[in-house]
Amino acid sequence: MTDRERSDVPIAFGVDIGGTKVFGVALNRDGSVIAESRVATPQTEEPAGLVSTREPGADVADAVARVVALLRNGPGGGSDGPVVAVGVGAPGMVDREGTLRFSPNLPSAAGADLRQLVSSRVPNAVVIVENDANCAALAEQAFGALRGVRHGLIVTLGTGIGGGLVVEGEVRLGSSGFAGEVGHMVVDPAGPPCPCGRRGCWERYASGGGLGRLAREAAYAGRLPHVVAQVGGDPESVHGEDITRAAVSGDEGALGVLDELGWWVALGLANLVAMVDPERCVIGGGLAEAGALLLDPTRRAFAELVEGGSVRPPIEITGAALGERAGAVGAALAARSANRA
Amino acid sequence: MTDRERSDVPIAFGVDIGGTKVFGVALNRDGSVIAESRVATPQTEEPAGLVSTREPGADVADAVARVVALLRNGPGGGSDGPVVAVGVGAPGMVDREGTLRFSPNLPSAAGADLRQLVSSRVPNAVVIVENDANCAALAEQAFGALRGVRHGLIVTLGTGIGGGLVVEGEVRLGSSGFAGEVGHMVVDPAGPPCPCGRRGCWERYASGGGLGRLAREAAYAGRLPHVVAQVGGDPESVHGEDITRAAVSGDEGALGVLDELGWWVALGLANLVAMVDPERCVIGGGLAEAGALLLDPTRRAFAELVEGGSVRPPIEITGAALGERAGAVGAALAARSANRA
Repeated sequence: MTDRERSDVPIAFGVDIGGTKVFGVALNRDGSVIAESRVATPQTEEPAGLVSTREPGADVADAVARVVALLRNGPGGGSDGPVVAVGVGAPGMVDREGTLRFSPNLPSAAGADLRQLVSSRVPNAVVIVENDANCAALAEQAFGALRGVRHGLIVTLGTGIGGGLVVEGEVRLGSSGFAGEVGHMVVDPAGPPCPCGRRGCWERYASGGGLGRLAREAAYAGRLPHVVAQVGGDPESVHGEDITRAAVSGDEGALGVLDELGWWVALGLANLVAMVDPERCVIGGGLAEAGALLLDPTRRAFAELVEGGSVRPPIEITGAALGERAGAVGAALAARSANRA
Repeated sequence: MTDRERSDVPIAFGVDIGGTKVFGVALNRDGSVIAESRVATPQTEEPAGLVSTREPGADVADAVARVVALLRNGPGGGSDGPVVAVGVGAPGMVDREGTLRFSPNLPSAAGADLRQLVSSRVPNAVVIVENDANCAALAEQAFGALRGVRHGLIVTLGTGIGGGLVVEGEVRLGSSGFAGEVGHMVVDPAGPPCPCGRRGCWERYASGGGLGRLAREAAYAGRLPHVVAQVGGDPESVHGEDITRAAVSGDEGALGVLDELGWWVALGLANLVAMVDPERCVIGGGLAEAGALLLDPTRRAFAELVEGGSVRPPIEITGAALGERAGAVGAALAARSANRA
């Protein structure tokens, strides 16, 4: 493909299904984001006593279609225009046909043929669905922190943990498309239960949910007096966002919780590094917004935890350059590639 | 490379440095083993009170040279012949220049430029050094259980645990040659100390050493009365080999220990599968000699432990076809490739 051919590819939309929001971008021919839109992620829990009669994934597909409609009405959206490419990033195990086979963090859509569900709701579109973190890897490779990296990995720390793997210059999807499901690496078989059915998965420690758990443990242990006071005195009311906010203003207890979080992030990264020997690890997802408050303790712990740390070339740990947009941008890139093929 | 060119490549020697023996093969032009030789692995511990004045790796390089000399005197050895290719598989982090950067299970050679040390001891040879499990992956890919597998992995369960990774049809070595160091994936941060400096590494549970530890725990707990009686009554005297031997004759307690070992093997495999999504996992190394006694409990536990086990295509778990020879055969293959280049 020459640059000239590439520039003829139409605008692509990318939609990232996150734990709290469904976020979309319209991507220009040169890869720049020309519009964004978002809606809240549909509740996965029905109100008490009610059982949903809708098919799995229908609510999420509705939300994706709303995000695409908003983008189409925006700049360059082409609401009356030709076929567009829509890429969807979904959390969990997405097979190569676009079915979400397994999704502990989006149980309402588990088993859904998301590609078909979205296609039927978005007229004149070619739809592809991929794992959200693999999308983030594509975006960071094209425009961000994995650019020019031959061996690298990205972990997205959000509601859960996703992962994407660059081996010899390419994002690798594995035999069924399920590569990079790093959040469900067990790091303590006696640890807390995980929605996936096991115990002690990495995402129970190093995700947004993990931060909340570490925070509440610190609150109950009396290590977060200021934060607990700010949320009204109940340790149970402390959430991850309270910690990052307090840490920004220098709260010792909150900084201690982020140190602990960084240790768990580093533990998982060290395990992944032992497997694939990358030159760089990129941290994305919502928690990466904490920047140096998370990256610095992660780097310190990683230096202790990585095998042969004193004798191997240093491995960079950096934040995702595209921040929380990475998944949506990468989904758009994946859709554009598929549309060209 | 055509078949005719390949057939002109001379005989290659491969030497695998294991925890207990240094084992070598001479590989024919068609890949068949025409000779084998072995010597005991030099003791890494000096007698009490003595400090070795030899340079790191010298003893091991001597042993490799002895193995090669034995092969050269054997069939097709070419003791007076032309330059030969010698491949060496070493446990631990081997960089692309053939230096053993880090080796918890062969501390006497850590830091050694093994390629240079062996070259200086083996006249008329081109020497390469690679990680032992990456060698095993090459051999199983060429002649064994990874043949035709596009995404696969091998773990070698011996004194420690090694690993080799096939992604889209190729054995991948990572950015520095250190990929596949799976034995030092931490699966319990509060677990037993590991010679690598951390705690709870997978190889503390699922290696030969791990089997010994599980066996002694079972012995102290009174679950191995027959085995303890056979070794003279002291639970401390129970070793891994006693377990496999007793399991073959149907000892309930020994079978229970192998079930436990299989659970730990499966836990690590499930973690690796989450990362790379292979279609097949191959188990090699000394413990693989236990065959179905280890493979069956591993498969049962893996079905429970792998993420999305009920909705993903089944992943085969098989024994290495080349058994304990895989490392040496793969080292010879690697040497032959290097010699052609």
